[in-house]
Amino acid sequence: MRAGSNLPAIGGYNQAVILDAVRRSGAEGISRVEVAASTGLSAQAVTNIVRRLIDDGLVLEAGTRGSGVGKPRTILRLEPRGRLALGVHLDPSVITVVLLDLAGSVVDHRTIPTPPSATASKTLRRIVRVASELVESAEVDATRIMGVGIAAPGPVDVQAGVVLDPPLLPGWRNVPVRDELALRLGLPVLLEKDVTAAAVGELWMDASGERGDMVFFYYGTGSGVGLAVHGEVVRGVSNNAGDVGNMVVGGVPGDPGHHRWLAGNAVLPRSLVADAIGLGVLTGDADSMTTAEVRQAFLRLADARATDDRAAAIFDAVATDIAQSIVTLVNLLDVDHVVFGGPFFTPISEFLLECVPPLVRASPMLVMPHEIVFAESAIGDDVAAIGAGCLVLDHLLSPRPAALLIQR
Amino acid sequence: MRAGSNLPAIGGYNQAVILDAVRRSGAEGISRVEVAASTGLSAQAVTNIVRRLIDDGLVLEAGTRGSGVGKPRTILRLEPRGRLALGVHLDPSVITVVLLDLAGSVVDHRTIPTPPSATASKTLRRIVRVASELVESAEVDATRIMGVGIAAPGPVDVQAGVVLDPPLLPGWRNVPVRDELALRLGLPVLLEKDVTAAAVGELWMDASGERGDMVFFYYGTGSGVGLAVHGEVVRGVSNNAGDVGNMVVGGVPGDPGHHRWLAGNAVLPRSLVADAIGLGVLTGDADSMTTAEVRQAFLRLADARATDDRAAAIFDAVATDIAQSIVTLVNLLDVDHVVFGGPFFTPISEFLLECVPPLVRASPMLVMPHEIVFAESAIGDDVAAIGAGCLVLDHLLSPRPAALLIQR
Repeated sequence: MRAGSNLPAIGGYNQAVILDAVRRSGAEGISRVEVAASTGLSAQAVTNIVRRLIDDGLVLEAGTRGSGVGKPRTILRLEPRGRLALGVHLDPSVITVVLLDLAGSVVDHRTIPTPPSATASKTLRRIVRVASELVESAEVDATRIMGVGIAAPGPVDVQAGVVLDPPLLPGWRNVPVRDELALRLGLPVLLEKDVTAAAVGELWMDASGERGDMVFFYYGTGSGVGLAVHGEVVRGVSNNAGDVGNMVVGGVPGDPGHHRWLAGNAVLPRSLVADAIGLGVLTGDADSMTTAEVRQAFLRLADARATDDRAAAIFDAVATDIAQSIVTLVNLLDVDHVVFGGPFFTPISEFLLECVPPLVRASPMLVMPHEIVFAESAIGDDVAAIGAGCLVLDHLLSPRPAALLIQR
Repeated sequence: MRAGSNLPAIGGYNQAVILDAVRRSGAEGISRVEVAASTGLSAQAVTNIVRRLIDDGLVLEAGTRGSGVGKPRTILRLEPRGRLALGVHLDPSVITVVLLDLAGSVVDHRTIPTPPSATASKTLRRIVRVASELVESAEVDATRIMGVGIAAPGPVDVQAGVVLDPPLLPGWRNVPVRDELALRLGLPVLLEKDVTAAAVGELWMDASGERGDMVFFYYGTGSGVGLAVHGEVVRGVSNNAGDVGNMVVGGVPGDPGHHRWLAGNAVLPRSLVADAIGLGVLTGDADSMTTAEVRQAFLRLADARATDDRAAAIFDAVATDIAQSIVTLVNLLDVDHVVFGGPFFTPISEFLLECVPPLVRASPMLVMPHEIVFAESAIGDDVAAIGAGCLVLDHLLSPRPAALLIQR
C-alpha cells in the first residue's frame, strides 16, 4: 500500500528542490525571490533552507543584481566543489574513471584499456589505484567526495551490487563490484547498468529540463537504450531496462527464416567490421580481434565511408536499422526526444544525425502526432562514466516526489 | 523546475492514501490502527481523515473485530455506492457503456454495434441516449456520478479531448468527443487511448498491487499495449504511448524485402481471417467484411483450431509473433507482469496462455534475469470500457506523489 506523507518528509524534499533550482540556474545564478516563485515555496521557507545549503557548503552568495526599483537582490549560485563524486565506466574495450564536481564538470579523468584476460578482481584493484591517483592529483578536499558510481554492461543485480553476466565481458560473471570497490575505496558505491547511468547523466546535465521524455540511444561496444519518462529514468523491476539488442529490425535478405537483430547483428561494431572484411573494405579476422582492434577497424571503416561505396552501404544499413528501432521505441513510449551518444556514435555522429531523423520522420510506420527532437548527448564520449558519477549526485541530491512519502 | 511541497498539499494526498487502503482491503475491511500501520500516518491523522471520508459517504463503519486482548477494533469498509462513474469504450466493432461503482463493480452495462456508416456526431448522440438510459434504469443517486471516461483507439489528443485519426474508425477524424459528451451529459469527461484506459482499469482492480510493472497486451479489433512502471501508467508526452502495431516481429517467408508487423499483418484479426480464407478454412471476402463479420469469422476460426491443422498453424504463428513482441517489450522495459485482455483474446485465451509463456521463457533472446508472471485480465472482455470508468475514479481518488507538489 502507498505510504502517507508528513511534515518531516517534506523538509528534505524541499531542500533538494531548492538546490536543484540553484544548480539549474548555472552561471547566471538565481535570487531567493526567483527560487520562491519557481518552486511555489514561501519566502520564509526559501530563506531557511538556503541558509542551511550555504552552511553545508552547497550554495554561495555571489553578489547582487539590481531589479529596477527596490533593493538589489542577492544572487545564489551553486558551489561546484561543495561535493564531488567518482564515476567509473566498465566497458569491454576501455575503463574510464572520472572525478566530477557538483555541477557535473569533470575535474579530472583517466582511461585504461580493459585488460582482456586479467581476472575481474585484478582489474578492480587497478580501478581502485587509478581512482585513488585521480583524487590525490586533483587537489580536492577528499572528505567532500560523496561516493562512487560504477556503470557496467547488463545484466546487473543492483540490489546486490553484482555484475551478473555481461555478454561482451567474459570473466565478469557474478562479480560483486560494489562491495569490492566500497571496501577498497572506503566510499559508498552505486552500481548501475551503463545505459541507465548514461541517461541519468544526460538528465542531470540537461539544463533545459526538456529531455524528460527521452530515448537515449547508446552506441558502444554493445548498444542499448536509456529511457526517461516524465523526468525519471526507467530502471525496471530488476534495474535492467533498456535492452534492445534483440529487437527485430527486419529479415535477413535471402534468408527469410532469420531475423536481423538490432545489436545482435545489425549495428554491432564487430559485425560491421566483419561485413566490411567480407566485402574487401577492411582486412583481418573480425572474430579474433580484441575489442580495441575492433574499435580501430571501426574508425577506419567510418573514414572509408566518404570514398568507398561499400563502406557507405554498410552505414546506410546501420542508419536504416537504427531508424527502424527508433520508430518502434517512439511509437511504444511516445517520447519527444531522441538523444545519441557513446564511443562508437562519435565517429559517425554527423552522418547519423543527418540520416536518421528524416528516415524516422518519413517512416509510414511512425504514428505519433508530434515533433521529435534529435540531439547528440550533451556530455560526449564519456557519457557512461560521467553518468556513473551523476548517479551519486542524483541519488543524494535530486528532488523526487517519492521522497515525500513516510519511510516505513 | 520542480515544485516544492507544503502542508496543504499533503492533506489531499493523505486522504487519497487512506481511501486507497480502505478500498484495497475489500470485503474484509481494515481498522484505523491497521491503516496507520500500513500508511505510516499517525493515529490522529488517520482518525481525522477517516471522519472526513465517512462524512463524505466514501467509507463506512462495518462492525467490530476482536483482537485478542484489548478493545475490539471498528472495521472500516468502502461504501461502494459512495461514488459512481460512467465508462464508454468506442471500439470499431462495438460500443460498450458501463456504470461503475467505487469498487469498480459494474452496476449495469449496455453494448451497441458501432454503426459503420453513421456520422460520429450521430453515434455520439446514440451513446448519450444509452448512457442516460443506463443511469435511469440503475436506480442510483445520479448526483454521485463523478464523470464519464471514454476510451478510444489512438491517436488521440487528450488535452483537447479529440479523437484524431483512428485507422479502423473512418469518420472519426478530429472529433471532439470530450466536449460533445460533456455538453450533452452535463458531466466532466476524460478521454483516453483504449489501451491506456485498460491498463488504468487493470491497476485499479488489482487488489494485490503486484501488477505495477506491467505490459498489458490488448487484443481487440486492433492491438496495442498499456504500460505500467512502478504503479503508474505510462501515457507518453502526447498520451499516445503503447502503439506496437508497427513493431517488426520478423520477415515475411519467401519475401525477404518485407517485414511482418505485429498488428499490421501478423496478428490483426482481419488478416488472420484473410489468411484462413486463402487456405480454404473459411469462406468469404475478408476485405469487404464489416468488423462485426470479421469478429464472427474469427470466432469460427478459433473453433476450427482444435480440428483443422491449417487453423492451428495460423494461431501457432500468432502465438510466436506475440511471444516475440513480448520478449522485445520485457527486454526493453524490464517488467515482471504480462497481462492479456481484450475481446479477441477471450476466444483463444486458453491457447495463448498455454503457448505464449513457454515461448517467451525459452527464447534465447530474453535477457531479463527474473521470472515473468503471465495472467489474464482481472476484468475480462469489457476491460477498456471498465478502464474508461476507472479513469474517472483513478483521476479523482488515487494517491499520487505528484499531488504532493504545490500547484503553481
